[in-house]
Amino acid sequence: MATLHSYVCGAFSTARGEEVALLDPATEETVATANCGGFDAEAALQHAREVGGRALRALSFAQRGELLARMAAAIHDHRDALIETSVRNGGTTRGGAKFDVDGAAGTLSAYAELGRRLGDARELGDGETVMIGRGAKLAGRHAWVAREGVALFINAFNFPAWGFAEKAATALLAGMPIINKPATATAWTAVRLAEILIEAAILPAGAFQQLLGPVKELLERLGPQDVVAFTGSSRTGVLVRSVPELLRHGVRVNVEADSLNAAVVGPDLDPDGAAWQTLLRDLVREISEKTGQKCTATRRVIVPQALLERLTAELADRLGGLKIGHPAHRDVEVGPLATRQQMEDVQRGCARMRAAAQVAFGRERPDALIDVPAGKGFFAGPMLFVARDERAVAAAHQDEIFGPVATVIPFDGGVEAAAALVRRGGGMLVSTVYSDDRAWSAGAARAMAPWVGRLCLVDSRSDGATLPPGMVLPDLVHGGPGRAGGGEELGGLRGVHHYMARTAFQGPRALVERLLEA
Amino acid sequence: MATLHSYVCGAFSTARGEEVALLDPATEETVATANCGGFDAEAALQHAREVGGRALRALSFAQRGELLARMAAAIHDHRDALIETSVRNGGTTRGGAKFDVDGAAGTLSAYAELGRRLGDARELGDGETVMIGRGAKLAGRHAWVAREGVALFINAFNFPAWGFAEKAATALLAGMPIINKPATATAWTAVRLAEILIEAAILPAGAFQQLLGPVKELLERLGPQDVVAFTGSSRTGVLVRSVPELLRHGVRVNVEADSLNAAVVGPDLDPDGAAWQTLLRDLVREISEKTGQKCTATRRVIVPQALLERLTAELADRLGGLKIGHPAHRDVEVGPLATRQQMEDVQRGCARMRAAAQVAFGRERPDALIDVPAGKGFFAGPMLFVARDERAVAAAHQDEIFGPVATVIPFDGGVEAAAALVRRGGGMLVSTVYSDDRAWSAGAARAMAPWVGRLCLVDSRSDGATLPPGMVLPDLVHGGPGRAGGGEELGGLRGVHHYMARTAFQGPRALVERLLEA
Repeated sequence: MATLHSYVCGAFSTARGEEVALLDPATEETVATANCGGFDAEAALQHAREVGGRALRALSFAQRGELLARMAAAIHDHRDALIETSVRNGGTTRGGAKFDVDGAAGTLSAYAELGRRLGDARELGDGETVMIGRGAKLAGRHAWVAREGVALFINAFNFPAWGFAEKAATALLAGMPIINKPATATAWTAVRLAEILIEAAILPAGAFQQLLGPVKELLERLGPQDVVAFTGSSRTGVLVRSVPELLRHGVRVNVEADSLNAAVVGPDLDPDGAAWQTLLRDLVREISEKTGQKCTATRRVIVPQALLERLTAELADRLGGLKIGHPAHRDVEVGPLATRQQMEDVQRGCARMRAAAQVAFGRERPDALIDVPAGKGFFAGPMLFVARDERAVAAAHQDEIFGPVATVIPFDGGVEAAAALVRRGGGMLVSTVYSDDRAWSAGAARAMAPWVGRLCLVDSRSDGATLPPGMVLPDLVHGGPGRAGGGEELGGLRGVHHYMARTAFQGPRALVERLLEA
Repeated sequence: MATLHSYVCGAFSTARGEEVALLDPATEETVATANCGGFDAEAALQHAREVGGRALRALSFAQRGELLARMAAAIHDHRDALIETSVRNGGTTRGGAKFDVDGAAGTLSAYAELGRRLGDARELGDGETVMIGRGAKLAGRHAWVAREGVALFINAFNFPAWGFAEKAATALLAGMPIINKPATATAWTAVRLAEILIEAAILPAGAFQQLLGPVKELLERLGPQDVVAFTGSSRTGVLVRSVPELLRHGVRVNVEADSLNAAVVGPDLDPDGAAWQTLLRDLVREISEKTGQKCTATRRVIVPQALLERLTAELADRLGGLKIGHPAHRDVEVGPLATRQQMEDVQRGCARMRAAAQVAFGRERPDALIDVPAGKGFFAGPMLFVARDERAVAAAHQDEIFGPVATVIPFDGGVEAAAALVRRGGGMLVSTVYSDDRAWSAGAARAMAPWVGRLCLVDSRSDGATLPPGMVLPDLVHGGPGRAGGGEELGGLRGVHHYMARTAFQGPRALVERLLEA
């Protein structure tokens, strides 16, 4: 059985840490062992800052982009191996694993292309030169320059490939060395990915390290030039952000947390029309894909009272048709949750909802599991609730249930009532408006916008040209206010800026303008 | 004698708080009384969010800009009254008070002009529309929209007018209502300013409130749509950022803290040349103006060994010529520090430096004070230290001494040695390179850039076209990493963005593009 190690200072660590068993969450069998902790945090930081940072900053954007292109190619070449570990260690179906692995390669490719377009520069101009005062001599010019620190990634268990790649693409393109800390429970894919990248000898020494186990000691040693990028639950995000040393040194912390993402249905929507079909397809996917373990999954369906019964019935019907079981079985569409802890959390959340709201579909422990040993596996749901009164609505806005569970909430059909419900989520990564009434759709979008990082609009004419709202796109920002963490990733250059420092240069025009050409 | 009150929910508060005496720091006489606390924090927040925010968001950028123009005009019209309170309550010379008051009006005017240019829109497009996927139908577009919360300003004692105005200009232009909390010690000017704005009836109801006294209770009630903008010491900035409720709700906190700003002298600089004169003039100003109580004041002079003696001697000579005393006296160039606490802090810092470094000029308590009662007044310095060894250099990089005190530190003349010293500051708001060697100057600027928010370049040809580095400009960002707080203010639209939310709209091209035109 594989034993997994941290990759520190250019080698897989032989230091003795704590041995943690990684399971197949569908059978509860041990499939690998992770050797956690035991690494020298200070040495890892020094190696990144002194060796990796210097090497990356010496490269142009085009050269850094070339590294990303080669990373994408290496991942693509080893796609099957990565999918295999995801299925065996993550409880992920092949479809879900492809979503992760292809998402990783696609994001790296998109940023490779961005690097190519940025060309030979190492810094980025920001806006035009402005003239200061009355004379024609004193000028000001803003530029983005690479930070001199290290980018520490704390990734979630659900996207071991993509979650790493979207952070790596932006940080490496900016010129920052990275230290990745994958979630231990699904670390097999992360370690496989590290092996692939190391074997391909793509990155300069010090540009990439990976740590298994707790990184508290590392967090406490970060300084003003470092960046932390965290993906996970809102609660853990708050804990990371609250580390006193990070607050003391003003370390930049970017948090991307799961949130109560909403699908909002316009009162005009025709249940026999094309947009209705997109709505249903999106909902089933955004509730069940990755067994609901996506930060962008839909948690709330906000639907006009008049459409409530029909939508709930059709959605329940579709959820009822999903085949659940061991993700290695080719018929299975929904696998288990990733860990026992996740399963217990989801079951607790469902019990809470059951006490306050009406169950429209499902149960805490599904039956008829395909290819799963009796009584085994971390399965839960899918479940669908309807919240008809304030008590039920309040219950739906407590902690996120990070599994295949959603709540349908009726409203009166007005833009303000829909937006008021959306706001109760306290900040979302993504939400979607389904409507063919362009005025209603635009009104809802504008009212919701300050609360949502990415806002999707779907109408009947967009059939065939929509993407599932849970799909994160390299060109559009990924993040959201409040509960969603208050961070921002991706979005083309916007995501790269988080790993750079913006400086205003002030002085004689010729001097200031020449600075960025050197 | 004046009693000063909070302005809450559209009226000066009559609630009974704690009475705090405001002093003339040159004589220690009481000049006014501040009625601190006692306000209803929740009511103030509701009023701002519900009344002020709605009103401001309904205005276009041009209309908001018009409000700023009228604020600037009102301040200009009452310039003398504001200068008078600054001199009497702040210990500020007339020159220092003009710097504050004219800076306030100038910043508001600059943002008024920006609003005019932005025109009838209420949201800002961010970048171009991007096409997603292979078809020509699905598009993505980013936009900045007004946040629905309140902007809370926690301002420092040193710039009661400008510190408020630079925050107000950006927040109001973004469409956010503001609650200002001035430092109590110099609140007279802040209250006078509030009276001027209220009397002129410029802002819509709820758009402006002002609280005297602690705002802890208010901070604890903020949420994901709110913004805190803090100016003050690094230590207090860390305390504000660490308030658990702010961390829990992902409240955006922008910190702008005093830092160890550096003047870096190139090895080529001719002591008989024009740039040398600019250097001396800048240093005297950036050490003594506002009695060194500027977050942008120069704290470190990094000078080649070969130029050390001459620079120190000439600088000491100029500092020795400064006239110190009661700021109302027309000959006085340097007034007292603002409070006894500030004086004691500065004297403690000077004692620390005296124990480790050589005193090149000055003493903890200056003598020959003009027009000051014997033994009275919160005076300290100016003092100049020279740090020739590591122990002295280390002492100079402890806490900032927030007064007219600087340390000269020699280096070997190489870019790397200069940059290494600059980095020891841990993050600066501003630093300046004085050199006529364009390669040296550019090399130093690039090496320092990730550590400095605004980097000024001065050469011999820039005479007559430079501005003192401590002067903050509306068009260039004001902020810096690490010790400087990690925040960013001003910089044209860049500063406005901090009070807005960025959202990605995704959907059919026609729908997405029309959203921003509505």
